[in-house]
Amino acid sequence: MRVADYIAKFLVDNGVNDIFMLTGYGAMYINDAIEVSGINYYATRNEAVAPMMAGSYARLKGTLGVACVTAGPGATNALPGLAESFVDSAPIMIISGQVEKNHTTYHSKLPLRTYGTAEINIIPVVKPLTKYAKFLDDPNDVRYVLEKALHLAISGRPGPVWIDIPLDIQNASIQLDQLRSYQVPRSKLDISPANIDNIIEKLKDAKNPLIVGGHGVRQAKAINEFKTFTDKVAAPVLFSRLGQDLLPHSNKYVFGQAGLKGSKYCKQIMNKSDLVISLGCRLAPQFVGLNFEAFENAEIVMVDVDKAEIEKNKNYIDLGINADVKSFLIEINKKLNNNIIPNRIKWLDYCNDLKANNPIVTLDQKKNPIDLYYFMKLLGDLSNSKNVLVTDAGSNYYVGGTVWDFENGQREICSGTNAAMGTTIPLAIGCAVAEPDFQILAVTGDGSLELNIQELKTISHYSYNIKLFVINNGGYLSMKKWQDDVFEGRRLDTSESTGAGTLNLSKIADAFDLDYVRIDDYKNIESQLNEIMSNENPLFVEVFTDNYQKIIEAFRDY
Amino acid sequence: MRVADYIAKFLVDNGVNDIFMLTGYGAMYINDAIEVSGINYYATRNEAVAPMMAGSYARLKGTLGVACVTAGPGATNALPGLAESFVDSAPIMIISGQVEKNHTTYHSKLPLRTYGTAEINIIPVVKPLTKYAKFLDDPNDVRYVLEKALHLAISGRPGPVWIDIPLDIQNASIQLDQLRSYQVPRSKLDISPANIDNIIEKLKDAKNPLIVGGHGVRQAKAINEFKTFTDKVAAPVLFSRLGQDLLPHSNKYVFGQAGLKGSKYCKQIMNKSDLVISLGCRLAPQFVGLNFEAFENAEIVMVDVDKAEIEKNKNYIDLGINADVKSFLIEINKKLNNNIIPNRIKWLDYCNDLKANNPIVTLDQKKNPIDLYYFMKLLGDLSNSKNVLVTDAGSNYYVGGTVWDFENGQREICSGTNAAMGTTIPLAIGCAVAEPDFQILAVTGDGSLELNIQELKTISHYSYNIKLFVINNGGYLSMKKWQDDVFEGRRLDTSESTGAGTLNLSKIADAFDLDYVRIDDYKNIESQLNEIMSNENPLFVEVFTDNYQKIIEAFRDY
Repeated sequence: MRVADYIAKFLVDNGVNDIFMLTGYGAMYINDAIEVSGINYYATRNEAVAPMMAGSYARLKGTLGVACVTAGPGATNALPGLAESFVDSAPIMIISGQVEKNHTTYHSKLPLRTYGTAEINIIPVVKPLTKYAKFLDDPNDVRYVLEKALHLAISGRPGPVWIDIPLDIQNASIQLDQLRSYQVPRSKLDISPANIDNIIEKLKDAKNPLIVGGHGVRQAKAINEFKTFTDKVAAPVLFSRLGQDLLPHSNKYVFGQAGLKGSKYCKQIMNKSDLVISLGCRLAPQFVGLNFEAFENAEIVMVDVDKAEIEKNKNYIDLGINADVKSFLIEINKKLNNNIIPNRIKWLDYCNDLKANNPIVTLDQKKNPIDLYYFMKLLGDLSNSKNVLVTDAGSNYYVGGTVWDFENGQREICSGTNAAMGTTIPLAIGCAVAEPDFQILAVTGDGSLELNIQELKTISHYSYNIKLFVINNGGYLSMKKWQDDVFEGRRLDTSESTGAGTLNLSKIADAFDLDYVRIDDYKNIESQLNEIMSNENPLFVEVFTDNYQKIIEAFRDY
Repeated sequence: MRVADYIAKFLVDNGVNDIFMLTGYGAMYINDAIEVSGINYYATRNEAVAPMMAGSYARLKGTLGVACVTAGPGATNALPGLAESFVDSAPIMIISGQVEKNHTTYHSKLPLRTYGTAEINIIPVVKPLTKYAKFLDDPNDVRYVLEKALHLAISGRPGPVWIDIPLDIQNASIQLDQLRSYQVPRSKLDISPANIDNIIEKLKDAKNPLIVGGHGVRQAKAINEFKTFTDKVAAPVLFSRLGQDLLPHSNKYVFGQAGLKGSKYCKQIMNKSDLVISLGCRLAPQFVGLNFEAFENAEIVMVDVDKAEIEKNKNYIDLGINADVKSFLIEINKKLNNNIIPNRIKWLDYCNDLKANNPIVTLDQKKNPIDLYYFMKLLGDLSNSKNVLVTDAGSNYYVGGTVWDFENGQREICSGTNAAMGTTIPLAIGCAVAEPDFQILAVTGDGSLELNIQELKTISHYSYNIKLFVINNGGYLSMKKWQDDVFEGRRLDTSESTGAGTLNLSKIADAFDLDYVRIDDYKNIESQLNEIMSNENPLFVEVFTDNYQKIIEAFRDY
């Protein structure tokens, strides 16, 4: 068997049905083996987005995502998407083709910039952005490397892995019985019963306990255990940006998303709490404040599978438990029987009062020009469990994070960590491939649209059930805000100086073969959304919103 | 003075008038300081292309190019362009904004994936793709770091440098008299007189000597010295892909571009030569053959400023001189007086016969569908010293490299090393900014067009004198060739399966506010080109060529 065929078979055997790629000479044996294997391949129009698509695919399905690129610029083009998948903890495998081994910088061991045709030594570049990065030097290592890569991608804190394979290795013959295998190491993450007891004592003693749910809860496939835990503790629950679709926000303990651009009342809940149990959340500065000031009155217990995240917060937290969130929850839930945690009706009432008195979308937001909060709230309200909500950079990211309440079991996939411009389109495509029966409600800004505008054609070519809502707010709303506040309104990148956000979007939609809809009156939003969502075809929807939209800020101005 | 203002002043003092950027929060103090300094800023629509634009700007002008991006995705988006500038040896400086120092992974010294808002520890990622990469930790290091970065970017083999600057450092105050400066180290590259004498003896003895001119000749600003040398040696001269615009090809010693897709007669000249003097050329496998077989009968002298390139070829070359090409040429030219090199009329006649008997563009190429060689030849012939020719991936790259003869002092800027898809548009924009009086004749394919299609709006917004020729050959011509040859014609990424190359380009041009011209008949090419080139506005020109175009191959099929 050839190495290329072994790789395709390995992917098939491990349940990989779909792969994101841009074909190229340097990966030609792998490309062809994929074609022959029957794995569905989806062509991107720039390799940058292939790992983003694989990443959202993986996050939505809870399985491995795979991307394949060619050597040199194919590999370096893929770096932006790799970085996104790394910070958003998407379990993906990237396979890059490479020139013949004898003409690689890797093999030369010299500080060359390039050697063979369009060759770049990609492994040192991707190493800091992956959990595992390996140049496949010996055909007989293929099984070991693939098994190790797969294990590392999907275990612990998930993340990207990268395998770089020279053409002659792709095409080399191997004997299956001569391949060594990878032994999955035993997990060293033990949860001590003493710690569990300690936390239960804290929960008993606390007046105002608070539970924080992060992305790690979903990644540990621990949502049921999380729900059980929150029911047993019966304390307020707040989510990080990537955790906000863990439970419907009608759940009586859930108070929505907290953090930098979360709701102000969440900040007040955080300030008032005296014990925080953080589960699978890295407690970033944008969540807890620059110096953890949101939790200034609280004792903090942090459960995280990534040891470095606990170490990072060691000056602020009281107990760090480096464990798989699911294992932790199973253990603690066992001991939380018989209502041993006292109820805190007063504390919950306090939180509920805050929420009731601080509605985010009020009646005066029914106005023209359209208020973005109002539009996004309607979009969330009208969606259901077969919808995925997607956002990227800027105002739509913040607003979606504030107003969506996931009542109907919707999922959200966003560029959660970076709020990176231009990610909505590739993230939406990855979701559409992952769940062909779902409808993807993808929101982006007129500035962000341009970064990966080429993939509009990917949407129309494959006829994905993606509704792309492009918020026209005159371009770069978020940037204008800091230019006004810090720099006396001096502008860079405005429509006048650089043409930012001045595309005629109906022409753009047409040029990329997408039907176009315009939303510009608050009175019609609901009926237009109902019509849009009853349609299975891709649609490009331009939403004209207030160019002076005010974004709610919980902590500080940025 | 603030660090941000010091940086802007440093750039102005060092002659930087133009900068390529996409503004962002993480670089806001630098962004604003640039605006205040009066440096012209050019906004890209995806950071990926900012270093490509800075790179072509730098290569065309022979000065430093500068790009500025924001933290996190701003920095990682810029990686594809960084890689291109690295392999094509473009002297550029990239300045990235970063979050506050206390919230950087760098400062934490932990293996975090991200820390502050949209933060990525970019320095370890860019280190393998730069000559110097530095996190600016201390405001008082700003002068030292900028001076060192500038020196390294433009000296020796030019290349990119990267400086990452946290927000609080950007905004920190410094005392100018407390800043340490960088001392440029003395060059250790000495040229021994014995080596010069040795080479002259070889030149006297050789029957069929050959001179190879690479990109390093231009980068050493040694074109005059190169011309003098070739006149004195009076031997055939061949160019690498990035060297082909060093001299007009009407020069009696010049026989054009050699290498993988060079002309077949060049291969024959190489095979016949018994002494090769290679100047500033890395002698890549795609130039000399996989095992230097093009020079199987020759003794090889290689002069290169990059020691690793000489080391790479040590098993094939006879004498490696690690020196600045200009210094070498000055030394050897001094000793080459009085026609000490014997003339080789027979050898030159042999080469001229080969050239005369192997014309690349023949009369039968005047046909429809348009032959790409014929079109590209006309484009080259009609251009002049105020034109820059630009190509990127695939057939246009190979054909331009074969048929252009640079009679009128034209320059060429191409993705020389990688022939990377999607680079033509950003390279053309960098050239247009570098030389506003020039007209840029930029060629790309209908596949490559899509990768950075967003920058079409940058062309129209700034009204650059760029004529963008998009070769419509049915998409991915080069890929189809290897699919036919190696994989029995099995297709990935064809118009049917993935929609490759199926955009309606006249609609695309219109959507991005560019005027559109169609070329589809060989009889009209010349008159249409004359009309196109008499116009100063940007134009999008779709050129319909033969979908079954045969590409001449000198070495092997790929």
